[in-house]
Amino acid sequence: MNGAQYIAEFLSRVGSDRVFLLTGGACAFMIDAVAQHRGLHYTCFQHEQGAAMAADALWRVNRKVGVTMATSGPGATNLITGIATSHFDSIPSLHITGQVNQRESSTFHGANVRQAGFQETRIVEMVRPVTKYATMVRSAAELREELAKAYAIATSGRMGPVLIDVPMDVQQAEAGDDILLPSKGPVTAEEPAKVLSDLRQTLAEAKRPVVLWGAGIGLAGVEREVATWLRQTGLPFVSSWAGLSYFDHDQPGFVGQIGVYGNRGANFVLQNADTVLVLGSRLDNRQRSGNTKQFAAGAIVHVVDVDVEELAKYRNDGYRTSHLDFALLPEALRELDVRPLDPEWGDYVATMKQRYYHKEVSTSAARLNSLSPYDVISRVNEIIAEDAIVIGDTGAAVCWLYQAFKVKRHTLFNPGGNSPMGYALPAAIGAKIDRPDRQVISYNGDGGFHLNIQELQTVRHNNLDIAIIVMNNGSYGIIKQFQDSYMQGRYNASRDGLSFPDFGALAAAYGLRYARIERLEQIEPGLFTSGPIVIDVMLSEHTLIEPKLEMGRPINDQFPYLGESEYAEGNRFVDYPRPASLRTA
Amino acid sequence: MNGAQYIAEFLSRVGSDRVFLLTGGACAFMIDAVAQHRGLHYTCFQHEQGAAMAADALWRVNRKVGVTMATSGPGATNLITGIATSHFDSIPSLHITGQVNQRESSTFHGANVRQAGFQETRIVEMVRPVTKYATMVRSAAELREELAKAYAIATSGRMGPVLIDVPMDVQQAEAGDDILLPSKGPVTAEEPAKVLSDLRQTLAEAKRPVVLWGAGIGLAGVEREVATWLRQTGLPFVSSWAGLSYFDHDQPGFVGQIGVYGNRGANFVLQNADTVLVLGSRLDNRQRSGNTKQFAAGAIVHVVDVDVEELAKYRNDGYRTSHLDFALLPEALRELDVRPLDPEWGDYVATMKQRYYHKEVSTSAARLNSLSPYDVISRVNEIIAEDAIVIGDTGAAVCWLYQAFKVKRHTLFNPGGNSPMGYALPAAIGAKIDRPDRQVISYNGDGGFHLNIQELQTVRHNNLDIAIIVMNNGSYGIIKQFQDSYMQGRYNASRDGLSFPDFGALAAAYGLRYARIERLEQIEPGLFTSGPIVIDVMLSEHTLIEPKLEMGRPINDQFPYLGESEYAEGNRFVDYPRPASLRTA
Repeated sequence: MNGAQYIAEFLSRVGSDRVFLLTGGACAFMIDAVAQHRGLHYTCFQHEQGAAMAADALWRVNRKVGVTMATSGPGATNLITGIATSHFDSIPSLHITGQVNQRESSTFHGANVRQAGFQETRIVEMVRPVTKYATMVRSAAELREELAKAYAIATSGRMGPVLIDVPMDVQQAEAGDDILLPSKGPVTAEEPAKVLSDLRQTLAEAKRPVVLWGAGIGLAGVEREVATWLRQTGLPFVSSWAGLSYFDHDQPGFVGQIGVYGNRGANFVLQNADTVLVLGSRLDNRQRSGNTKQFAAGAIVHVVDVDVEELAKYRNDGYRTSHLDFALLPEALRELDVRPLDPEWGDYVATMKQRYYHKEVSTSAARLNSLSPYDVISRVNEIIAEDAIVIGDTGAAVCWLYQAFKVKRHTLFNPGGNSPMGYALPAAIGAKIDRPDRQVISYNGDGGFHLNIQELQTVRHNNLDIAIIVMNNGSYGIIKQFQDSYMQGRYNASRDGLSFPDFGALAAAYGLRYARIERLEQIEPGLFTSGPIVIDVMLSEHTLIEPKLEMGRPINDQFPYLGESEYAEGNRFVDYPRPASLRTA
Repeated sequence: MNGAQYIAEFLSRVGSDRVFLLTGGACAFMIDAVAQHRGLHYTCFQHEQGAAMAADALWRVNRKVGVTMATSGPGATNLITGIATSHFDSIPSLHITGQVNQRESSTFHGANVRQAGFQETRIVEMVRPVTKYATMVRSAAELREELAKAYAIATSGRMGPVLIDVPMDVQQAEAGDDILLPSKGPVTAEEPAKVLSDLRQTLAEAKRPVVLWGAGIGLAGVEREVATWLRQTGLPFVSSWAGLSYFDHDQPGFVGQIGVYGNRGANFVLQNADTVLVLGSRLDNRQRSGNTKQFAAGAIVHVVDVDVEELAKYRNDGYRTSHLDFALLPEALRELDVRPLDPEWGDYVATMKQRYYHKEVSTSAARLNSLSPYDVISRVNEIIAEDAIVIGDTGAAVCWLYQAFKVKRHTLFNPGGNSPMGYALPAAIGAKIDRPDRQVISYNGDGGFHLNIQELQTVRHNNLDIAIIVMNNGSYGIIKQFQDSYMQGRYNASRDGLSFPDFGALAAAYGLRYARIERLEQIEPGLFTSGPIVIDVMLSEHTLIEPKLEMGRPINDQFPYLGESEYAEGNRFVDYPRPASLRTA
């Protein structure tokens, strides 16, 4: 086999049988090899960004490492935003880029020129900050070793994307007929006995415990065991956004998702706990807010994570930390003694849940006499299959989704830490291609949706039965809400100076069905069961995200502001005084 | 002024009054400052990639440094492909990205985490290989210094793009009321006297001289002086693609553009010269081909360039080199004694020009009885204004354009060394916004056009009078031609497995006019004078690029192959024997 054929055979052997791509001169031989391999399937995207985002989705829906192929230069750089999305959310993906012949490369000449070969670009250096590993291979021998190594790195420990840059001469060099397969190394972490002892100590002292469920549980594939443990112990738990996909939200102990856009009840419970056990969440700034000192201010916070650097960052926070291979988490949890819940704490948690859990109300929509995004999401939630794949995009739209959607056996995700606009369409394509058996919902705002609109052609060409919801408020709503708070409502570049297309006409141009939704009743099951469709949900331009934290407040004091008595009831155990200037009626 | 206001005032003072952008949380304050500045105008794009490509076009059409603003994370990474385009083609542009508050950044925590702040990304490291300078500013004082420094770097010596990453806290920090303006440093280069003496020596020996006109002449703004010198000396000259924009192609000494897709006559003249004087061209691989030994094999090659590294790369080629600040080029040329042209060389050059100059024929189109792309381009060339701005995209389409288009006072450019698909639409938007007085033609293939289709909304919103030509062959033609040569015509991912949308329906969806062209006569002036339009030119799927070099041949032996006698006549002075295996009838 030559290098190109070797890559194809490798992908087949490791089970990465889907290759998402846009062709070009420097990758054409590799694509030819993929196309000729009986065990592989390739899908053409209309922009490499779409391919990378679709590859990111594969692991999220099917625990399969997504693969892209792209040409040198713009092909490779067009992948970057998608690669970064995988990196920040710990998603394994493999990106294979073509590179110019080594004898045409800038380094071959021994001079420091910007470029020698046509479309030559130093992609490896460029993606290093957003990959777990990236390298250019200089020979077929290196290709063999590095492919196996990169694949193992992508899928072990805290996972992430990797990139292999393959010069054209290496694609055509003889690479041998036996495949070097990846072997996972052991995860370096603390001794499980040490972790267990530390966790015991933390829980022994706990009077008002809460568990924070993070994505790490699901990424390690131990979600069932952890859910069982939570049910058995009766511990209340909250979740990060990225964690929400991995359990049934009707599980009794679940109080809601926390953070800047979090559920008020979940935020109160977290903020009033005396012990917060964080399992596999990096507590990003949308969870703790910018002011980390006011996060769980009365609590011992104990974070368990697979990434030791994520633990090192709590140096100044005084958190307890445990560095653990999450494959060992269920065993550690089973060994813990958990006392029955203190009744006062149990009553409080129950009250908070009863008062706030899935009680989302859009006061702005009510005032404007327009559709409530929360009602829209609840209705969609009821109508679609219990195991549907629901992919959120960015901005206000994704906030509404995460505030109101209840997971049964659904898969729910969004592009998390990177949050690129235009993710939810190509990700839905990747999801549907690999899981044609499941309903797939791509859920967007009108702003984000337009960034990768070209992929509607990919939907059409492959006749992918995806429902594309557009929450249409004619603007970048989340930016407008920011401008309301800090720029006296000057809507520059969020509403003024831009406009969005007629999505009905666009859907027709791409040969897709279209439904314009102005009343809740128009959202009916038939929309989701008869082939690809764009569902354009007309909202008022002034629909807000509610609740939402504004700068300087703790996460339990969100806009719209609660009255003093309700605020005080929420903070039954820990005092979070409002500064005089921030106090509300 | 705070940091955001300082940036706005700085841009106004240096004359970069156009800001191309897509908003986001981390850049909203800067955009607000730009919007409130009376001397600045902002344009919203529908994807940051469009903004960066439009900014790249500004200098090319108006010698104005284009500016983008984008948010952290995906906003910044979406700029990269456009930034790289500026870098490889020596175009100055300024990219200002918002970054998370420093206290929310990963470095603040002292741990090596992938990300701390929402959408935080180490963009500065990532763009380093494709910028002349990139830095993050940590204070208002640094912002002041670095803005001036970056601007000076972008616009001096061999120019290029720069990026400044501005954390939100720096945007809001007090930055003072006086503006620190950029001051250009001197260009480090050889003494002009030394260059002059070296050039004299080269030309003194020349019996069959030819000048290669490179983009460096135009980038330095000395194109008129060089054209005059060429007219006065009577020296024959050829051009690189990037050089073609800067002179009237009817100038008598001009023989054509060279290279892989070059004019046969120009390639013969270059290959038969005994002296090639290269002025400001980097002789990339599409000019010399992969096999540089067969480039101007019988000649002394003397390269004059502003970038010393571009000269260092010729170490093994035995070229003479001169490192010169091109502002001094006209003076140096005037001092040279140039002997009258040897009559035999003069006759030969005249014969080559007469035989091949603008005699483009599409034998494939003739055989297929379909439209010839060369006829289409010639007709457009006749119809549009003599000073129209014509922007080529990539692939086969741009090859046809550069083979057949004759520049009078036009501005002609394409994304050169980076060659990203989807460049010609956003670049045309940038061009038209800054030069509404000139006709603007965006010239695309159907493949490339679709990558940034979302910017049709920018055309519509701003009612930009752009003519968008689509050379529609229903495939990626240049890849198909490559697959014909090396993959037995397996059209994987170039025609098979993909399709393109109905551009008529898309134009209608975006509210633009549309014309479907099936006969040459349908291309008439009215198409170009009545507002934005998509002109869809229907070609046969099998239309080829002719001539085109295949691997292993010297640039004067292109496909379709000349008969032996015509080939021999072209090589009157230097023998380029065809290997037996490559010989043609």
